[in-house]
Amino acid sequence: MSEQIDKQSKRSHLQNLTEALQSGTLLKVRLMLNTLHPAEIAHLLESMPPEQREVVWELVDRENDGEVLLHVNDEVRAGLIRDMETDELVAATEGLDTDDLADIIQDLPGVVSSEVVQSMDKQHRLRLEAVLSYPEDSAGGLMNLDTVTVRADVTLDVVLRYMRLRGEIPELTDSLIVVDRFDTYLGLLPLSSLLTQDATATVAEVMESDIEAIWANMPATGVASLFEHRDLISAPVVDETGKLLGRITVDDVVDVIRDEADHTVMSRAGLSGEEDMFAPVIASSRRRAVWLGVNLLTAFLASWVIGLFEATLERVVTLAVLMPIVASMGGIAGSQTLTLIIRGIALEQIGESNARWIMLRELAVAALNGLLWSLVVAGVVVLWFQDVVIGFIIAAALIINLLSGAFAGFAIPLLLRRVGIDPALAGTVMLTTITDVVGFIAFLGLGSLFLL
Amino acid sequence: MSEQIDKQSKRSHLQNLTEALQSGTLLKVRLMLNTLHPAEIAHLLESMPPEQREVVWELVDRENDGEVLLHVNDEVRAGLIRDMETDELVAATEGLDTDDLADIIQDLPGVVSSEVVQSMDKQHRLRLEAVLSYPEDSAGGLMNLDTVTVRADVTLDVVLRYMRLRGEIPELTDSLIVVDRFDTYLGLLPLSSLLTQDATATVAEVMESDIEAIWANMPATGVASLFEHRDLISAPVVDETGKLLGRITVDDVVDVIRDEADHTVMSRAGLSGEEDMFAPVIASSRRRAVWLGVNLLTAFLASWVIGLFEATLERVVTLAVLMPIVASMGGIAGSQTLTLIIRGIALEQIGESNARWIMLRELAVAALNGLLWSLVVAGVVVLWFQDVVIGFIIAAALIINLLSGAFAGFAIPLLLRRVGIDPALAGTVMLTTITDVVGFIAFLGLGSLFLL
Repeated sequence: MSEQIDKQSKRSHLQNLTEALQSGTLLKVRLMLNTLHPAEIAHLLESMPPEQREVVWELVDRENDGEVLLHVNDEVRAGLIRDMETDELVAATEGLDTDDLADIIQDLPGVVSSEVVQSMDKQHRLRLEAVLSYPEDSAGGLMNLDTVTVRADVTLDVVLRYMRLRGEIPELTDSLIVVDRFDTYLGLLPLSSLLTQDATATVAEVMESDIEAIWANMPATGVASLFEHRDLISAPVVDETGKLLGRITVDDVVDVIRDEADHTVMSRAGLSGEEDMFAPVIASSRRRAVWLGVNLLTAFLASWVIGLFEATLERVVTLAVLMPIVASMGGIAGSQTLTLIIRGIALEQIGESNARWIMLRELAVAALNGLLWSLVVAGVVVLWFQDVVIGFIIAAALIINLLSGAFAGFAIPLLLRRVGIDPALAGTVMLTTITDVVGFIAFLGLGSLFLL
Repeated sequence: MSEQIDKQSKRSHLQNLTEALQSGTLLKVRLMLNTLHPAEIAHLLESMPPEQREVVWELVDRENDGEVLLHVNDEVRAGLIRDMETDELVAATEGLDTDDLADIIQDLPGVVSSEVVQSMDKQHRLRLEAVLSYPEDSAGGLMNLDTVTVRADVTLDVVLRYMRLRGEIPELTDSLIVVDRFDTYLGLLPLSSLLTQDATATVAEVMESDIEAIWANMPATGVASLFEHRDLISAPVVDETGKLLGRITVDDVVDVIRDEADHTVMSRAGLSGEEDMFAPVIASSRRRAVWLGVNLLTAFLASWVIGLFEATLERVVTLAVLMPIVASMGGIAGSQTLTLIIRGIALEQIGESNARWIMLRELAVAALNGLLWSLVVAGVVVLWFQDVVIGFIIAAALIINLLSGAFAGFAIPLLLRRVGIDPALAGTVMLTTITDVVGFIAFLGLGSLFLL
């Protein structure tokens, strides 16, 4: 019976490997590594501090090098490549799919990549150039060139004999691609039809001709939602004239979806999606410093706003005690709206037709929650400081700030998208700036008006 | 030539549909809907305010109802089901895969679900019960029961004849599953091998027996990473004894990955992943109120801490002006560490073997950035307020708060995971509480010591 896998397996791989490394039994480590798939080895390498990573990388079977390099993130890959000899690198790239090679080749040192290209035959070189001519995050950049094509006018019987002659077909092939003699895409012939339909029928009779090909310039995110909506395993890619260029397989689409999600989460903290948990301290500090610097500017802006009310604060110090509440509640409410809108944009569910509706709804939610929590906060403040006027002031400031937070959370991502900035990256900073500034001005301004 | 799809197509579906709705040409709307796949109709319905949604839902072809219900999120589904008659609902569930039916049936009113179950034959009912007996987010809950099995001792020729007799095979079938007469899983026979290998060979000779089956109790996230690492299209699911129960297909795994990512992003703002952008204002307000309430508690805690230093603030109002900077910078730095650790946990890349290393690295990054930005802040503050002592105080408080932010960002998710709370949900609130409290105590405390 086959080995069964549970949730623990991966963590214990890491644990076992670390223990074996520490006890110095490298032979055991090597044996363990060889039972794993390249993607799992890549995952382990990403989970290790640099010194361990180097030792383990040396122990990986040379013939897995290419696949492992492919699966680690850009930053870890750069580190691994740095320690490899030219001939090792050339050997590692042999046997990779063209789309995978295209992903890696840009990260290789110039000497290596030109040697790799020179070692290829002309057909392979042309294919590689075809993939490289499209952006990495487009259908063309994602596509494989390992299509198996058939003509429409032959019978299934001929196709079946051809398949048996061929001897093997590329992984993740669920359909053969039907083309005419100019390589124009006509339709798909699923392997399952080939197996179940009458063998005397022609390909044209059996093929599925209503399946649309993907245009090579389509963005990767569009490809992903197409695969998701249509439950595809693979799909043909064509150029503007309808000529078949290659195919996209679901494994690459899964990577796109994972990367996209990762990117959203990481950018909201100002981190790059590829951040290596074990990157050198100096490099990480430098990258994160930028984000801290941007946030510092907004913090100084908030301080400057508070400074405008120094005279008021000097006389009513209670305002200083309470002011973070107003700013923070506005930020929280605003970030709920912001998150919803950023997701709506990513899923392409927000357009001109519904934007107004969504804005009014968000403002209504903010108004209701503003009323509710301003009552609570006012109650607590009146009890705490025995001052009804401050209670009224904080209630009013809260409502104002929740409304402005909701409006900013709605408007910022739409504006950023229009000017081509990623809302996940810049949205939160801009939102907090607004809710801090509006919060402090509303609360301290009302305080100056009614308490002095 | 087949129609080509670009990024714009979906948004313009929404736009076109809205315009057709507004001009009242319902026939046109119906025609447009019928050219779309159920998942795309579901996507459109999710992008519409309730009134439009109801109108469009009425126009959807009845035979697509089941598939559309399957693809909309839980909240939208509940709304659509509410308006349907029992017989419509029973009709909608016909023809759904068992795993899909299992997803929907729990959302149906009791009358409907028992009628659905009664209308099934015994075999289907037993299958449904099998799927329902596993949690929705486990391999058992994800599995389909539409496996095509073959025995190991027959020749490929026999299998080929069986396939042609069968006439069709379930979608997303890339392999037949090889079992013995007790239904014990033995291996996989890829369709591609069936097509390319010698037809006189036996299944046992050709099958891939080194592919592990998935245990029905494996969590969905584990299934997802297995599919990702091994580039699977479908995988067999077995019980503890190795008996074949069903199979998981990559389309369901893609949904798991998407939901997981969505859940992480949404929970960090205290929103549920299933949130409907067009949900009624009252319902949304109530859900979000909880999150605002939790955050209000932490804001009051911060205010209380500030209140402890009221006497100091009264005498040195500059401290009130600057205190948000210390709190905010600690929060930003901490959330970078928090995000990295939450991701590391989700990817199962953090374990006992590397946790210490990561913590020291995060503290080192925080120390470096603390030094850098405390110098900058101190410089600005000295220039602004002409007060060297306050410059020193804010520099020291910043370093303290960045370090405590990094430590909290590291420790909170690991602690939360140990007690079984989702770090993505509770992590940020807890972190901000700590960076606010530590920030205010450090800054105002040092201020009280050195300025009074």
